[in-house]
Amino acid sequence: MTSRVSVLGIGNAIVDVLARVDDQLLADIGAEKRSMTLIDEQRAIEVYQKMGPAVEMSGGSVANTIAGLASLGARAAFIGRVANDQLGRIFTHDLQSLGVDVRLPPLDGLASTARSHILITPDGQRTMQTYLGACAELGVDEVNERTIGDPEVVLLEGYAWDIDQGPELAREAMKVAEHTGSVVAISLSDARCVERHRDAFLDATARHAGMVFANETEIISLFDTKSFDEAVDRASDFDALFVLTRTEKGCVVVDGSDIIVQEAYPVDVVTDATGAGDAHTAAFLYQRAAGGSLKECAVFASRCATAVISQVGGRLDEHALKHLPEP
Amino acid sequence: MTSRVSVLGIGNAIVDVLARVDDQLLADIGAEKRSMTLIDEQRAIEVYQKMGPAVEMSGGSVANTIAGLASLGARAAFIGRVANDQLGRIFTHDLQSLGVDVRLPPLDGLASTARSHILITPDGQRTMQTYLGACAELGVDEVNERTIGDPEVVLLEGYAWDIDQGPELAREAMKVAEHTGSVVAISLSDARCVERHRDAFLDATARHAGMVFANETEIISLFDTKSFDEAVDRASDFDALFVLTRTEKGCVVVDGSDIIVQEAYPVDVVTDATGAGDAHTAAFLYQRAAGGSLKECAVFASRCATAVISQVGGRLDEHALKHLPEP
Repeated sequence: MTSRVSVLGIGNAIVDVLARVDDQLLADIGAEKRSMTLIDEQRAIEVYQKMGPAVEMSGGSVANTIAGLASLGARAAFIGRVANDQLGRIFTHDLQSLGVDVRLPPLDGLASTARSHILITPDGQRTMQTYLGACAELGVDEVNERTIGDPEVVLLEGYAWDIDQGPELAREAMKVAEHTGSVVAISLSDARCVERHRDAFLDATARHAGMVFANETEIISLFDTKSFDEAVDRASDFDALFVLTRTEKGCVVVDGSDIIVQEAYPVDVVTDATGAGDAHTAAFLYQRAAGGSLKECAVFASRCATAVISQVGGRLDEHALKHLPEP
Repeated sequence: MTSRVSVLGIGNAIVDVLARVDDQLLADIGAEKRSMTLIDEQRAIEVYQKMGPAVEMSGGSVANTIAGLASLGARAAFIGRVANDQLGRIFTHDLQSLGVDVRLPPLDGLASTARSHILITPDGQRTMQTYLGACAELGVDEVNERTIGDPEVVLLEGYAWDIDQGPELAREAMKVAEHTGSVVAISLSDARCVERHRDAFLDATARHAGMVFANETEIISLFDTKSFDEAVDRASDFDALFVLTRTEKGCVVVDGSDIIVQEAYPVDVVTDATGAGDAHTAAFLYQRAAGGSLKECAVFASRCATAVISQVGGRLDEHALKHLPEP
């Protein structure tokens, strides 16, 4: 048992504002289903006014993964910015109460804490309208050897590149990781995000990343290929391990020429797809740190993703862990 | 179709902070299961620190009932105080987005918006630790003919008597209701609350109330009887209609010498008992306004309460209404 932090995540610190909506609302606000759109504060107010009653809970892609790791019992840490407002204190509490080492406290004088309006349609799919607020004010100065420490894995989300100093702080984080011998893991966030930062992601994948987490559309976007199979071929050429999720088609793990295919577990009802990928990443990293084979990691990750899909809310929590499908 | 508001509720404007906990946590904080305890801000911070990750959603007993009425399609209005902070704006949004006429806007310069820490044990029961904050600053000046209008029913919760000017503003509300010909309905909140205000509640029941909503322990406490049957006997002596819930034993409606007994609907899993009584009240009032017989009201109320028990969260919302048990 080491005292080293297993995974430190760097990403957007966001409170989710979840509401069930009908498809018409997506049309009304001009949102494409399953997209994540960055919006400004004025637009956030407009979208919120069109939404019905909502439920608030801590979210953020890497933050979800870090919370999931902590729920599984791993030592985990997080770097992300929240304002010292009610939602920022809620976000911080929710991670700290799981034992996550939150490296940056809520700060006065920022824009308000980030909110992602998550619109859940009757098919269980989620469409996100995200106001970055305070978390866009994360600066490169806050990412250094002191705040990162020497975790086994430094996990960066693609969305981190969207904030002003994002590309710079990502480079700094990868530099620190190299010094401390931490594995760099990158989660590609979404296909549009990959389009925005393709060159930076390709460079990070080639030169820094030990692991890349992506879904089908993200990996196709990264390599700009026509098919998933072609993207898998491209992934084989890299040193990094690729964990590629394909929703109901399961996942594919690519480790050079080794390719492991894992079926998805059946889901009775897709209640809310929010966070399924984040839970998959958490479980995969957890099992990997515990010395699991790639196949074992893929099985456990799929089970955990299934449990999260069957509940409202994006985190792999104690409740979801009690409702894992049989392996 | 009248343009008159069907029900105006006056009560505490509270955001629920819900978390699943084990029984040990109740012991650690010295809370009795299923109790509602009023706590100060310092204690609220301590309780919150001991809780795991939570979900935030609008609550409050009468506010839940008003939201339920609006979800059912009734014209409903609400008087309660929130601060102009994030939680206060969330509370207000959640009611307004259902079409509820929120009579008081969020206000600057108050204590923070009220929070009820709702601790859900594995048996689905909820124990509440409530910090009243801003809602304790509701004043008698804010309850008058202008803010109340002329609804068909003015619904007061027992908890309203707990706030500083509560007894006085309740009297004022009942006086206004008499002027405008509104029926006064009182929901007794909890047995401890009845102990705190028994004389005032008995007086209101005898002199003002057209309807009294209570559960078994509350009505026994109100009349200080040894048994539920004895309490039903006492209720028969009043002009008011009594709607008395008994969890798995269903409910009893007492209208003078007429007594209607309604069985409960079977519940597969008690997910979260929060708000079951509030939903029962909403459905009963809705059906009554629609001209339903007392039996019809009792059936519909029981179905709606069952739907709320089977989900996390205390409001009879669109989702719960889609999952009503067959009558």
